Amino acid sequence: MEKKYPVVTVIGGGTGLSTILRGLKKYPLKLNAIVTVSDDGGSSGRLSKDFDVLPPGDVRNCLVALADEEALMTRLFQYRFTNGDLREHSFGNIFLVAMSSILGNFLLAIKEASKVLAIKGQVFPSTLCKVKLKAVFDNGVEIIGETAISSYKEGRIRRLHLISSSPLTATPEAIEALKNSDLLIIGPGSLFTSILPNLLIDEIKNTIKKLKIPKIYICNVMTQPYETIGFSASDHLSVIVEHLDFVPVDYVIINTKIPSLELLYKYRSSGANVVEVDLDNFKKFNVEVLTGNFISETNLVRHDADTVAEFILNNFIK
Amino acid sequence: MEKKYPVVTVIGGGTGLSTILRGLKKYPLKLNAIVTVSDDGGSSGRLSKDFDVLPPGDVRNCLVALADEEALMTRLFQYRFTNGDLREHSFGNIFLVAMSSILGNFLLAIKEASKVLAIKGQVFPSTLCKVKLKAVFDNGVEIIGETAISSYKEGRIRRLHLISSSPLTATPEAIEALKNSDLLIIGPGSLFTSILPNLLIDEIKNTIKKLKIPKIYICNVMTQPYETIGFSASDHLSVIVEHLDFVPVDYVIINTKIPSLELLYKYRSSGANVVEVDLDNFKKFNVEVLTGNFISETNLVRHDADTVAEFILNNFIK
Repeated sequence: MEKKYPVVTVIGGGTGLSTILRGLKKYPLKLNAIVTVSDDGGSSGRLSKDFDVLPPGDVRNCLVALADEEALMTRLFQYRFTNGDLREHSFGNIFLVAMSSILGNFLLAIKEASKVLAIKGQVFPSTLCKVKLKAVFDNGVEIIGETAISSYKEGRIRRLHLISSSPLTATPEAIEALKNSDLLIIGPGSLFTSILPNLLIDEIKNTIKKLKIPKIYICNVMTQPYETIGFSASDHLSVIVEHLDFVPVDYVIINTKIPSLELLYKYRSSGANVVEVDLDNFKKFNVEVLTGNFISETNLVRHDADTVAEFILNNFIK
Repeated sequence: MEKKYPVVTVIGGGTGLSTILRGLKKYPLKLNAIVTVSDDGGSSGRLSKDFDVLPPGDVRNCLVALADEEALMTRLFQYRFTNGDLREHSFGNIFLVAMSSILGNFLLAIKEASKVLAIKGQVFPSTLCKVKLKAVFDNGVEIIGETAISSYKEGRIRRLHLISSSPLTATPEAIEALKNSDLLIIGPGSLFTSILPNLLIDEIKNTIKKLKIPKIYICNVMTQPYETIGFSASDHLSVIVEHLDFVPVDYVIINTKIPSLELLYKYRSSGANVVEVDLDNFKKFNVEVLTGNFISETNLVRHDADTVAEFILNNFIK
């Protein structure tokens, strides 16, 4: 009885991922988002003690971006009680804390959140194991923990590792989602702290390797302070390929529109800049590069949800 | 693209209504529930000050009964924070308080709740106006307020009135739902405090009168202390007809299974009993009476969700 919609799975994190989901949800697709949950505070113990350090704004943003009624869900999730006991807690955090308490931990809470919220799609943490990120920098320094890694200024990340005290398995539903997909989209999102932590999980990596469907990498439009300063478009893909030992995509979508000088000037103060489009360097990857104007410029430079979604629909969904 | 499902609208309240919704949601139907919100504390001002008197358990029960994942939604809505600031607040109340604050009042919060929760159908308050119930008892006493009415022991209700300081209008979406319905179900639910308060709103009454669709009244299985002690099945419909001045239904579904003596004995202590099936008295209403075993007996006598839903589907949905 139910019509079968094309299944699109997006792997990423941060604002980039929610933008892609926000655009794609307007189309008749079955959407899955596979996300990394920050290792800095993902334990339900810590959540229950201190709402305000609850870190996974990314997860909340994905849930909200997928909402049937995004404006209302945004207001609900951001709503802070002004009176009495509940003062200063956002509803989004209260929701995730309640779900974590019921289900035992925060990762399960995220996995089940799509079952109680009116959202178009599902958000899966890539793993239900407690994982820490370890980065080895080019100066030999090793740093553990996402927040510490993304704020270390003295070197560039050479290699990222996942550290888990138990055998590191992927969330079964995430693997199932990948296997049932008609299209895989990797990115946009923070290369080292959002994208790679998903891809480094063996089961996810190996499942992607076997997938016989179109696979796209959507390259970030701006470099990120500390993490990817000076990175060209091909540098982004190179980092992924070096970590996986294979090229996980067939297509790369790259924005070629240069943002306004005013915005670039603003970004420059933090060391960020527009990602350089070095098309020649993609030859070694055997991928097809698709370029265009994919950005929207407000006070930030972001992918434009509708433009990217329309482009993907026109080019990859029959 | 979307398949058009038969539209079924249920008017009622209490456990009875949630039972019907729980049964019907398993079928490919578009479900609407029109509910009365208790006048005892429905203002958002009072809600924000004191969570624990938040009365509309009925509304929460309907939302939960319609949930895609009812077990999880039940646990979430009933979840009480055990630590710190949030102690003693149930998540269901926190949710409704947050929605009320965002939208301005509690009735709008209910109307919009179906847009952010993963539920199969919509729950509409019958009116967005602040209404109080006034009951005139057979001893001449007049009592205002639902709680006071349903606990007054010294007489029987002769007439129920709605009191509103502003012109009493129905929720537009509730009228729209009625007009688009393929089937209307009234009841089960507390006759005076759940069913009648909906039907007494002029717009709802007049809309029902004009509807050219099958309309069913599902009679309660047990009488209710104070409200309907001694009422037969036809007494229930008589009260509705006396208040509306017309017979609003074409069919009446009546349970004829007598519950176990043990259960009847338990009920007798509160003055309640099984509703007497007086089929002959229905002749004057020009309705078709449908009888059967529709109950489930646990520690209470209730309609059985699956039996009622299956019966309705088999008899009224092509």
